[in-house]
Amino acid sequence: MDVLVVGSLAYDTLETPAGSSEDELGGSASYGGFSAAFHNKKNHGNGISILGVVGKDFKQEHLDWYENSEIDISGIEIVEGNTFRWIGSYHGNMAEAVTHDTQLNVFESFEPKIPQSHTNPKILMCANLLPSIQSTVLDQVTPRRLTVLDSMNLWINIALDELLEVIKRVEVLILNDGEVRMLSDEDNLMKASKKVLSMKNGGILIVKRGEHGVIAFHPEGIVSMPAYPTNNLVDPTGCGDTFAGALCQHLSKREGALSRGELIEALTHATVTASFTIEDFGTSKLRNITEERYDSRYQDYKFISNLR
Amino acid sequence: MDVLVVGSLAYDTLETPAGSSEDELGGSASYGGFSAAFHNKKNHGNGISILGVVGKDFKQEHLDWYENSEIDISGIEIVEGNTFRWIGSYHGNMAEAVTHDTQLNVFESFEPKIPQSHTNPKILMCANLLPSIQSTVLDQVTPRRLTVLDSMNLWINIALDELLEVIKRVEVLILNDGEVRMLSDEDNLMKASKKVLSMKNGGILIVKRGEHGVIAFHPEGIVSMPAYPTNNLVDPTGCGDTFAGALCQHLSKREGALSRGELIEALTHATVTASFTIEDFGTSKLRNITEERYDSRYQDYKFISNLR
Repeated sequence: MDVLVVGSLAYDTLETPAGSSEDELGGSASYGGFSAAFHNKKNHGNGISILGVVGKDFKQEHLDWYENSEIDISGIEIVEGNTFRWIGSYHGNMAEAVTHDTQLNVFESFEPKIPQSHTNPKILMCANLLPSIQSTVLDQVTPRRLTVLDSMNLWINIALDELLEVIKRVEVLILNDGEVRMLSDEDNLMKASKKVLSMKNGGILIVKRGEHGVIAFHPEGIVSMPAYPTNNLVDPTGCGDTFAGALCQHLSKREGALSRGELIEALTHATVTASFTIEDFGTSKLRNITEERYDSRYQDYKFISNLR
Repeated sequence: MDVLVVGSLAYDTLETPAGSSEDELGGSASYGGFSAAFHNKKNHGNGISILGVVGKDFKQEHLDWYENSEIDISGIEIVEGNTFRWIGSYHGNMAEAVTHDTQLNVFESFEPKIPQSHTNPKILMCANLLPSIQSTVLDQVTPRRLTVLDSMNLWINIALDELLEVIKRVEVLILNDGEVRMLSDEDNLMKASKKVLSMKNGGILIVKRGEHGVIAFHPEGIVSMPAYPTNNLVDPTGCGDTFAGALCQHLSKREGALSRGELIEALTHATVTASFTIEDFGTSKLRNITEERYDSRYQDYKFISNLR
C-alpha cells in the first residue's frame, strides 16, 4: 500500500453562493482518498486505502464510489448509529466556512484499531481528526517513508495540548494560513510559520492559502506558489484534503529524504488537483477527472505560473 | 528619455503597526521615479523623468534626492501654495490604507503642461492622478512604445466616466484586486478582470494583490506570480508605484509588441523591487538598494517561486 488515509467519512449539507447540496458524501478521508486514488491510477502506484468509521445509514452507493476509484475500503468500520454530519455554509469569496452544526455521531466513540495489513503504508496521511485520535493512529502505524498530518482551527481552540504533541511526531504538517496565525498568535505569516515550525521541532510545514496559493517551509528553502486561477468557484469543501491526497500519492513514489525539488513537484500536483474539487459540490468533479483534462490543466498551471 | 513618470509628489504622514512617520516624501511619481531610476542605472538606460507639481514648501533636500538618483526633474513645477499631503494609517495585516485626510493643495489647480522635451518618452507611466488630469497628459504625450496607467478606488467612486474614458486609451492598465472587483461589480477576481479588460477594449491588465502577488492578463495568456515573502512589513505606502516604476523601466528596454515573456520578466523585477519599499517608511529603502542586494533577492525570489 502506497498511501493510507485516515480521516473522516461524512455527509455534508451545505450552502454556497453557487447553490446548495444535502447529504453530500464528504469527509477528509473521502476527498483525500479520491485524490490520491486518481494519482495512484495515473502513476501506476501500489494502491490507496482509506480508514475511518461510518454508521449503518452509510449508503452502499458511496462504498461503491470508493471501490470504483480502486480505493481499498477494508479499513472502514461500519458501526451502529449515524454517520458523521457537517452542516455549513460559505459566503462572499468563500474563504471561510461557517459551521451551523456538527453531529459527531459514530465519531464520538471512534477508537481506530488499525488492521495489521494497514500498519506499514509508504505514506500515512493523517487527515483532520481530533488530535487524540490522530495520536492513537500514529501509535499503531509505522509508515515506510513519512507521515503527513492535517488539522483545523477547532482543535487549536479546544485541544491545543494534544495538537502540540501530535505535530511533533510527524514529518510534514499541513495547515491553512488562518490556523498558522492562530496557533502562533502572530499576524505576519512568515513569522507565524517559523514559530509553528519551531513548535513542531523542524521538518516541513505547508501553509495553504486558498485562492492565494501555498507557501511551504522546507529545510532547503521556502517554496511559494500561486493557486490555479479559476472563475468557476462552486464549493471549496474538501479542497484542502484533495490537496493533501495528491501530495501524499506523489510523495509515495520515491524513497529516502524528501528533497525540496520533490516537494515542489508534489505541491504542483496538489494545487492542480484541488482546483477540480472546487468546481462542483462534493466529490463528483474529483471522481471524474480524466487524465487528459488533468494533464492539460497541469500544463496550463505551469504555463500561467511560469514554473520551471 | 526611457520613462516619463507623471504623478503626484507628496508629503505623507502615516501610522502603521510598525511605527509612524511625519511629512515623509511620497507620492506616486516619487516612488515610481526612484524605482524606475534604480533599474535605469542598473540597465544603463537613457534616463527617467518625473513630472508633477509641488508647493513652495517642498524641500530642496528632496529635490536633491531625485537628482542623486539621476532622475530628471526639469518637469517638476514649483508653484505658490503647499505640496499635496496625505494623512493615513494601516492596521492589522496592512492590506488597506485608511485615509484620515487628503489635502490636495497645489494639486487642486494642476493642469499639466508637458514641455516639448518630455512629449516622446519610450514609456509613459501615468501614475495615479485624477482621471481628467491623466487624460490631459495622454493628450500631450505620445510615447514611442506604450503607456502604463495606474488608478485608485477613489476615482471609481467619484470620477467613473472619466476613468472609463482614460483606461480605453492605454495599452497597460494596473489596478489592485479590490479596485478590479469594484470597477466590475463582480466578486470573482477572474470574472472581474475579464470584465475590466472588455471595458478597456483588450490590451493588458495587471492586477496587484498585495502580499498575494500579481495576476496579469495578456492576449497570449494569464500570468500569476506570488509576492516575495517578507517578515519585515513596515509600511506598504508606495509599493504599487514602485512596482509600476520597475515594470516601466523594463518595458523600455525593447521595441515593438510586448510579448507575454517580456511581461513576465518585467513583472518579476516589479515584484522584487516593491518588496524593498515595504521594509521601511517612505522611499529610504528604495533609494538605497544596492545592485548586489537586489540581484541576491531577485535570485532568491526566482528560487522560492520556482520560476523558469
